[in-house]
Amino acid sequence: MQKSNIPMRNQVDVTGGFWGQKQQLNRSVTIHSVYDRFVETGRFEAFKLNWEEGMPNRPHIFWDSDVAKWMESAAYIIEKTGDEDLTKIVDGVVDLIEEHQWDDGYFNICYTLFEPEDRFTARMNHELYCAGHLMEAAVAYYYATGKDKFLRLMCRYADLIEKAFVTERWAEFSTPGHEEIELALVKLWKATGEERYLKLSKHFIDARGAEDEGWNEYTQSHKPVREQTEAVGHCVRALYLYSGMADVAAATNDAELLAAAERLFDSVTNQKMYITGGVGQTCVGEAFAPEYDLPDTSSYCETCAAIALVLFAWRMSAIKPDRKFDDAAERALFNGVLSGLSLDGKSFFYANANEVDLAGKNQPMESRHHPYYPDTRRVEVFGCSCCPPNVTRTLELLGEFAYSYNDDTVWVHQFVESTADFDGKGLTVETAYPNDGKVRLTVKGDFTLALRLPAWCESYRLNKPAVFKDDGYLYLDVQDGDVIEYDMATPVRFTQANPLVRQHAGRVAVEKGPLVFCAEGLDNPLPLRGLIIDLNGKAEVTTDETLGVPRLILDGFVRPASEKLYAPLNRERLPQKLSLIPYYAYANREECDMLIWFNAE
Amino acid sequence: MQKSNIPMRNQVDVTGGFWGQKQQLNRSVTIHSVYDRFVETGRFEAFKLNWEEGMPNRPHIFWDSDVAKWMESAAYIIEKTGDEDLTKIVDGVVDLIEEHQWDDGYFNICYTLFEPEDRFTARMNHELYCAGHLMEAAVAYYYATGKDKFLRLMCRYADLIEKAFVTERWAEFSTPGHEEIELALVKLWKATGEERYLKLSKHFIDARGAEDEGWNEYTQSHKPVREQTEAVGHCVRALYLYSGMADVAAATNDAELLAAAERLFDSVTNQKMYITGGVGQTCVGEAFAPEYDLPDTSSYCETCAAIALVLFAWRMSAIKPDRKFDDAAERALFNGVLSGLSLDGKSFFYANANEVDLAGKNQPMESRHHPYYPDTRRVEVFGCSCCPPNVTRTLELLGEFAYSYNDDTVWVHQFVESTADFDGKGLTVETAYPNDGKVRLTVKGDFTLALRLPAWCESYRLNKPAVFKDDGYLYLDVQDGDVIEYDMATPVRFTQANPLVRQHAGRVAVEKGPLVFCAEGLDNPLPLRGLIIDLNGKAEVTTDETLGVPRLILDGFVRPASEKLYAPLNRERLPQKLSLIPYYAYANREECDMLIWFNAE
Repeated sequence: MQKSNIPMRNQVDVTGGFWGQKQQLNRSVTIHSVYDRFVETGRFEAFKLNWEEGMPNRPHIFWDSDVAKWMESAAYIIEKTGDEDLTKIVDGVVDLIEEHQWDDGYFNICYTLFEPEDRFTARMNHELYCAGHLMEAAVAYYYATGKDKFLRLMCRYADLIEKAFVTERWAEFSTPGHEEIELALVKLWKATGEERYLKLSKHFIDARGAEDEGWNEYTQSHKPVREQTEAVGHCVRALYLYSGMADVAAATNDAELLAAAERLFDSVTNQKMYITGGVGQTCVGEAFAPEYDLPDTSSYCETCAAIALVLFAWRMSAIKPDRKFDDAAERALFNGVLSGLSLDGKSFFYANANEVDLAGKNQPMESRHHPYYPDTRRVEVFGCSCCPPNVTRTLELLGEFAYSYNDDTVWVHQFVESTADFDGKGLTVETAYPNDGKVRLTVKGDFTLALRLPAWCESYRLNKPAVFKDDGYLYLDVQDGDVIEYDMATPVRFTQANPLVRQHAGRVAVEKGPLVFCAEGLDNPLPLRGLIIDLNGKAEVTTDETLGVPRLILDGFVRPASEKLYAPLNRERLPQKLSLIPYYAYANREECDMLIWFNAE
Repeated sequence: MQKSNIPMRNQVDVTGGFWGQKQQLNRSVTIHSVYDRFVETGRFEAFKLNWEEGMPNRPHIFWDSDVAKWMESAAYIIEKTGDEDLTKIVDGVVDLIEEHQWDDGYFNICYTLFEPEDRFTARMNHELYCAGHLMEAAVAYYYATGKDKFLRLMCRYADLIEKAFVTERWAEFSTPGHEEIELALVKLWKATGEERYLKLSKHFIDARGAEDEGWNEYTQSHKPVREQTEAVGHCVRALYLYSGMADVAAATNDAELLAAAERLFDSVTNQKMYITGGVGQTCVGEAFAPEYDLPDTSSYCETCAAIALVLFAWRMSAIKPDRKFDDAAERALFNGVLSGLSLDGKSFFYANANEVDLAGKNQPMESRHHPYYPDTRRVEVFGCSCCPPNVTRTLELLGEFAYSYNDDTVWVHQFVESTADFDGKGLTVETAYPNDGKVRLTVKGDFTLALRLPAWCESYRLNKPAVFKDDGYLYLDVQDGDVIEYDMATPVRFTQANPLVRQHAGRVAVEKGPLVFCAEGLDNPLPLRGLIIDLNGKAEVTTDETLGVPRLILDGFVRPASEKLYAPLNRERLPQKLSLIPYYAYANREECDMLIWFNAE
């Protein structure tokens, strides 16, 4: 069933361009900054398991996973650079895990320290989530270094989990709380060849939502996953689950499970996704809200959720190449994921606003009418700091996101300056994407090349004949030495939301290529909602040298000032230029208002 | 300083028309329905002060005021109809108050029952608020019947309060919590001639916000009232305070205090008032939110707050006749007050939505992104049931709201079918207002007539020459027997909000005369925000026979349905009629969506 393979890390090198710069920043700044903050907050120290009452930095139930994602990120970097400092750190943590792993294979900082007798009794306490992230890190480190100690430790842990939940059934709950281990077990299976890890993953997926779990949308346990049709509940949980479903469906040739995953993908992206690729509309339960309900000032859009959408879409598009998956992943990557990281690479948003209204947000609590406004300043570490190490690992995966392949064909899902070689089918890609739409691909070997034509792209040029298929790719047979010039037009364009989205009725967003643009209060008169784009006006594309990002200058209007709160409609408009930057670059200067959805005439 | 006098109740009779019908409904249905619910919930029984642990209906700290407002309403009706049943009920309650009043004059159900030693120790516990409403009821009953027992009991209570807070100063706080007694003491002064009640009111007003009270916007104690410039905090509290300020300013010729009251009126009506006259944007603290921040689906707009705005504006316009006061009072009366009562007169909204989005509201709590949505079905009684008896008393006051007078002049502030006689200056008013703008006034005596020209009215006819002055009135000298034909044009009109109101940018409201119209989901396709009014289209005025209200049919459009969540802007529009009813009539059929602010092209 799986039509193509996701690349191994050693098959692709990101060589420069937009994402190459982001990877360099990640390796020179972000990975170290996250490490330093995790050291300062005791997260690494916690693996010594010597915390006692009265000491600072009481370990938290998520901390295993924070460090695990950091180790996974480090492994990805080590695989490319051989970085010795990072290697030393990971080895040190692995030694501590070995030292403190229970004889039966169990490892969890908080349960070991605080309530060893209560392990596997509380579904909501993230034990299996932490286990899953440690497994992902172990697999990544094994691929990166060939060292298998961490992998073996995690296999022992997986074996224990199999016993507790399947063979001996002494765990007091039946399926994981926060999903993650499902997809991790598939990785463990792939790395070790041990089929039982795949079976355990499939077990967790199919047991989920069984009758005795009780009805609970928050945890995606309201019904068996194969019967689920609408994305509901905690957003990151949901998307990690769906990713695991895709993995298991592909590995077991399970068309029904794959169809369920695709239905849920469609539910997310056709009904519940912000134009930024941000998902999880509400802070209440960090969850999906109803269909077509996309409030902007109170949007939650956790950075981890946008990442999880990318991870899910990436898997789906390898199984069943379709530009709808790539388009969604691209939308998230360039907008709702990247907005989670400051331009200097040091600080993060956990939640990502889709509109900033400082006047409302900065009121004292007693005057607020929203329960929740996302932060408007990024910070270097959070109490629950899942997002920063999730960003560091995601930035390392851009090469893998870009392609998939099988014996005949190489699919180009994302446009990333890189070199790739899939068993002799090679590509060298040069591009200034997303700042323009030109992509030059130099071919090594003879094969079929499948180039995504993004749904947003209304015209393109290609220097070779190609066949456009329903799946959204241009297919062309290429030969060794061919140079493919692919040029997607990226004019400034105005985008509407489905008329069923009440928040955006009558308004437009501004996009160029894969980038969503926004207006910041520092560059435009307030209130930003008073800006009116002239739909028949000009759009000038410039560069903001300070921020190092493109800047659009659009023709538009504002309404004349009024003294009255209510007055007869005045249809007069005054000329007003609008000045927009990419959404991913918002909130990198002083705190100010921000708007994506504009009035337009 | 006071330019004109508010009528005594015996000077005006509402004789029919729109408000006459509402008064008939109040007298035949509402007053009895509120009474029955208050009996069922133990509110009347509570005055026996025999409640004990284990009995149902534990008295609540607001209950004295609930019954007091009901008694005030009953007194107003008794004054007009001599209703014996109502008289018996009020006399019964007065007897109970007499029986249980303390020797020193104190009366409060909860403190007497539960913690008599703690009276006047907790500023937030509404003792003085309850006292104020009892005083208002006592004054009204005295005017209605000439019986002075209730009035004397309340004078004894006021005397005690003077001792506790001024003379002997043994109360543990210095100014009232929930304001109300300030305006009530002025009524007590007017009814008794006892100057010390006016002084006590002035004391409470001027001591408020003194340094030792601490900073607290919620209770309007953040600074001395004379220095306050922005309406903040709990909305009903604020507007009762401002009403008391207006009363004291007029009674003591205090221009500074009057200026403060006017500044606060302007703050409310120029920056914080919904187009319905609803005020108090947020449920959090039942409070004013920031300027120009008028969210619709989560609007609080307590019915009592709209009533309080009318009571404040009414006082101001007698002191300093200006149509801005009358226009705001009218806006509230016909929209945000009346929406609080069902068309059958039996049930109430406490909070009034400015938009209903059932899909969002009806989600389980875990999927909600607003903390609060107003009710979408009226109920007959609330746990905190301040609004129902406030509606019953307000409906009785329409005659008093309509006029003010002095030796030379009669001002017509509101257009109410009625007869009035102010020391020989008489008017008989006939009108179908607000369903059309024609008002026929027959004059008795010779005087100057001042007719409000509402700010919304762009053209009118008057059968006599008149002078329009800056204050917004048409002044004409009339003579005994004159028949004045005043015809205000009331075409359907489109209204904009100040461009600083971000929620309403680019949208219009539909008004006709003083009525705000809304679309309900039962009559229009969803989502209502997808409706686009054709600004160049026709507006047909019809009657909804079922609801007994006007219905507007407007030309308009909807956008074509879309499968995509995001797509290139499609400027195509499909014709779609919009069907609107007055806002005051919303939510009188099945639960459905509702919208006031429309997209328009």
